[in-house]
Amino acid sequence: MQHSAQSATTPSSASPLLVVGSVAYDDVETEFGARKDLLGGSATYFSVAASLFTQARLVGVVGNDFRDRQIFADHGIDTRGLVTDASGDTFRWGGRYHADMNSRTTLYTHLNVFERFRPDIPEGWETSPFLFLGNIDPELQLDVLSKVRPPRFVTMDTMNFWISGGKRAAVLSALARVQGVLVNDEEGALLTGARTALGMGRGIQKLGPNTVVLKRGEHGALLFHGPDIFYVPAYPLETVIDPTGAGDTFAGGFMGYLARTGDLSLDNLRRAMLAGSILASFCVEGFGLDAVRTVHLDAVRRRYTDFESLTRCPSRLL
Amino acid sequence: MQHSAQSATTPSSASPLLVVGSVAYDDVETEFGARKDLLGGSATYFSVAASLFTQARLVGVVGNDFRDRQIFADHGIDTRGLVTDASGDTFRWGGRYHADMNSRTTLYTHLNVFERFRPDIPEGWETSPFLFLGNIDPELQLDVLSKVRPPRFVTMDTMNFWISGGKRAAVLSALARVQGVLVNDEEGALLTGARTALGMGRGIQKLGPNTVVLKRGEHGALLFHGPDIFYVPAYPLETVIDPTGAGDTFAGGFMGYLARTGDLSLDNLRRAMLAGSILASFCVEGFGLDAVRTVHLDAVRRRYTDFESLTRCPSRLL
Repeated sequence: MQHSAQSATTPSSASPLLVVGSVAYDDVETEFGARKDLLGGSATYFSVAASLFTQARLVGVVGNDFRDRQIFADHGIDTRGLVTDASGDTFRWGGRYHADMNSRTTLYTHLNVFERFRPDIPEGWETSPFLFLGNIDPELQLDVLSKVRPPRFVTMDTMNFWISGGKRAAVLSALARVQGVLVNDEEGALLTGARTALGMGRGIQKLGPNTVVLKRGEHGALLFHGPDIFYVPAYPLETVIDPTGAGDTFAGGFMGYLARTGDLSLDNLRRAMLAGSILASFCVEGFGLDAVRTVHLDAVRRRYTDFESLTRCPSRLL
Repeated sequence: MQHSAQSATTPSSASPLLVVGSVAYDDVETEFGARKDLLGGSATYFSVAASLFTQARLVGVVGNDFRDRQIFADHGIDTRGLVTDASGDTFRWGGRYHADMNSRTTLYTHLNVFERFRPDIPEGWETSPFLFLGNIDPELQLDVLSKVRPPRFVTMDTMNFWISGGKRAAVLSALARVQGVLVNDEEGALLTGARTALGMGRGIQKLGPNTVVLKRGEHGALLFHGPDIFYVPAYPLETVIDPTGAGDTFAGGFMGYLARTGDLSLDNLRRAMLAGSILASFCVEGFGLDAVRTVHLDAVRRRYTDFESLTRCPSRLL
């Protein structure tokens, strides 16, 4: 069952959320098994998670082998921006997770048509009030920013390959033009040289974004927003089946919640962090999209209640 | 300045807290420098942290080279149980932290007199209501348990060396006889075979203790208490100078707070977790005991207020 109830539950006040990123097929091995040809990619996980809260608009590219548009339709995701490049196959990634799930070995990366991806923004989408720039070439992220009217709230992701490779200047240019960024510890360290989460958060803020989300996998995530900090743990799970896509799912839950509510206050950013952490917790409970594509808002609300108890500080120490 | 105000601020209702563990001299190298002959050991960090909240009673052994009893006296720590074995030197440990502070290389371990340590409980101390069994041979932990009247609350630590070595059965016997345990991720995984924090917490509870604290360094700590779970992050710091002793300092803050307040409710265990995390955050801000030995309650209270903001979930997601 998909959460196709999206169209029924998304209030008319929700803003559309534009995402530019990868759509891929993944081969994944964890200690719980091996799966082939899983629908994946950063924009896929992001948009499926976001679709629980608002309408997602997806800009990406697939090859002539792609056969999964229906999944996006089931979630009310607009794929007018998902172009088919018939000259090749869809991006393919294969990886194997180590027993502790905290590290993985990439078995192969076949960019295929993604190597020639040039994002086109469909007519009408350039005014999307919320925008997420997934982990693509930072020059393409800058290109997208030049093609849209400044959104109300724009965030980006990036990765070690761009930061440490020849594109560091472009990454810094993009960072200077967005309001928010979501990165993991490794990327935070590469961007800032800092060793601690606080050092990374404050260091990235100096590069431009007022809002920094540091994603730490099983250790949760930290929000830096102006002078404020908010910490959300990972939802405690007995078993993690497949961590693939958890970071993109977090980003989709975070941005989807903000686009739905239209409230960029600190308190609402806290809620968005919790929404991201909750969606990511569902993501890792199944291979690929198996678990996250069937989540309903009631299940999200139940985990939210669990979080309130999980992190509640009683007043007064001494 | 030491927090020798302990005697002035500890209420008469506070219970004494007995700790059995190591007292050592450490040579430590981090990216911030190298220090020699730092006073260290699990019982040292534990008792100095606990002394902020209550009177600590220390059982341990030192060699004929030991010259630091005054530090304990300055903190109102009773060292009648700290015997001098004139046949050799004090336990010595040397270690080098890697740049990310998350891993370290042990340069040497000279057990010296600690190798022949047999804990003797001074007269009157066998009725101590709170007891912490530091990381010593589990057969000695069992020996201590046989020498005391069942305390109101007893917790223990252990380590990979005992769990994976020939003493696993003794570790399990000790676990079956304590109410609480404080371990790190590695120890939790070795004890249970679990991969996730929740799996480790629930797995250890099945071995006996109703209260399990999983210490995760820069990623904070999790409390499992009956069916309940509480998560406390690490206090955000720009710079970590020296992580040595942070786990023992956490344990000292946790147990010291409980002994001071005498309240073993879930809410008070949450406060004790915060006290532990706060004390550990001071510990890592200096080499050895430099930072933690000068902490005052006012500084602890300020960080407690920061934690309330750091983890506060606003009500209502949707």
